[in-house]
Amino acid sequence: MDKIKVINIQKRVYANNDEDAMKLRKKLTLNQTFVMNLMSSPGSGKTTMLINTINRLKSQVKIGIIEADVDSDVDAYSILNQTGVTVNQLNSGGMCHIDADMAKQGLDDLNYKEFDFVVIENIGNLICPASYDLGQALNTMILSVPEGDDKPLKYPKMFTKVDCLLVSKVDTLSVFDFDFNKLEERVKKLNPNIKIFPISAKTGQGMDAWCSYLMDHISSFQKGGKANG
Amino acid sequence: MDKIKVINIQKRVYANNDEDAMKLRKKLTLNQTFVMNLMSSPGSGKTTMLINTINRLKSQVKIGIIEADVDSDVDAYSILNQTGVTVNQLNSGGMCHIDADMAKQGLDDLNYKEFDFVVIENIGNLICPASYDLGQALNTMILSVPEGDDKPLKYPKMFTKVDCLLVSKVDTLSVFDFDFNKLEERVKKLNPNIKIFPISAKTGQGMDAWCSYLMDHISSFQKGGKANG
Repeated sequence: MDKIKVINIQKRVYANNDEDAMKLRKKLTLNQTFVMNLMSSPGSGKTTMLINTINRLKSQVKIGIIEADVDSDVDAYSILNQTGVTVNQLNSGGMCHIDADMAKQGLDDLNYKEFDFVVIENIGNLICPASYDLGQALNTMILSVPEGDDKPLKYPKMFTKVDCLLVSKVDTLSVFDFDFNKLEERVKKLNPNIKIFPISAKTGQGMDAWCSYLMDHISSFQKGGKANG
Repeated sequence: MDKIKVINIQKRVYANNDEDAMKLRKKLTLNQTFVMNLMSSPGSGKTTMLINTINRLKSQVKIGIIEADVDSDVDAYSILNQTGVTVNQLNSGGMCHIDADMAKQGLDDLNYKEFDFVVIENIGNLICPASYDLGQALNTMILSVPEGDDKPLKYPKMFTKVDCLLVSKVDTLSVFDFDFNKLEERVKKLNPNIKIFPISAKTGQGMDAWCSYLMDHISSFQKGGKANG
């Protein structure tokens, strides 16, 4: 009984969420604020990758960060101290994901119109965030090498929902039993158009390709925004 | 509005769940079936650790496994093929945790009365499963070294809810910036009575201490069960 109740409730929440996300996306497009929703498991290296990305792009675009967490503000302070960009902390109150309404609150608090590029670093969770559209222009996922190449089999939804996948900590490939080709095959089966970047924030491997892809998307979005808005 | 709705709903579900879990715990105690709820992030090495534990204990106790997943049965087949014990697959239908009613269904399907020791391998998630009592005798969590020593700061609830913590993949300590003492300090601050085992399923490090702790708990439970039931 419990189980069925919860599933019905989730459907209602999703319906409202899609509507909220659509409205938010329209506003963000008109204001030319490119929002990236960044999702992954706990400990995949989201924050480290983000710090490296910000430091490579901050001279080209004005960046703001929304750091969502169940608890603590350690990541928000790391980003602020290591990049100097504006960071807002969003506490989820124990919830395992961010929804469009929470994203809107975070973006309004940040005063998003002032920024070209805003990253929402979602809660570390490979399941729940996949079901919530945040009005983002780009959905990005990180999977770290230590997590294993079987994750697309076990958590398929997230892999179908994202535009690009960063495979992080590739400097540790020799330590783990991780088959990159097998991973790629499993991911492409779920999502043929996904773009995959092997990266290491530690050694810098793959960061140029990733940042250039990201800048291309931000530029195209802004041109589209200018043309339409 | 969405946010508040969801929080209220979760409270109602928890209340029912605690009652269901209490009933289930009573039954399991009477039947002397020791249930362990095993929780962690995706990719922390739950299944590998489990296979190693089963192979060390299966001559001493009759073991059954409930393998909960959002999708796929790859782990269930790995366990079956590498240990030979009975494994039931429990698909969560997209849900990010197992609740007491789902655990009961899984245990009934397994015919739990035939087993001394049943492990419910929960969904890979560091947030949601922490809120659901499954009627277990032991709550165990795995944190892998690559996830980082800051996880107790970011996902405190799970660390307060578990009886023991296995720190897995300690053979990779030299590759990652992981301070074991810092982790221990952070965990003990949240949960002073927690028992922590550094382990590596790959090298076997720590597996003797962990398995002996586990067997002690199973024996005590069975003595208590006999005395009371």
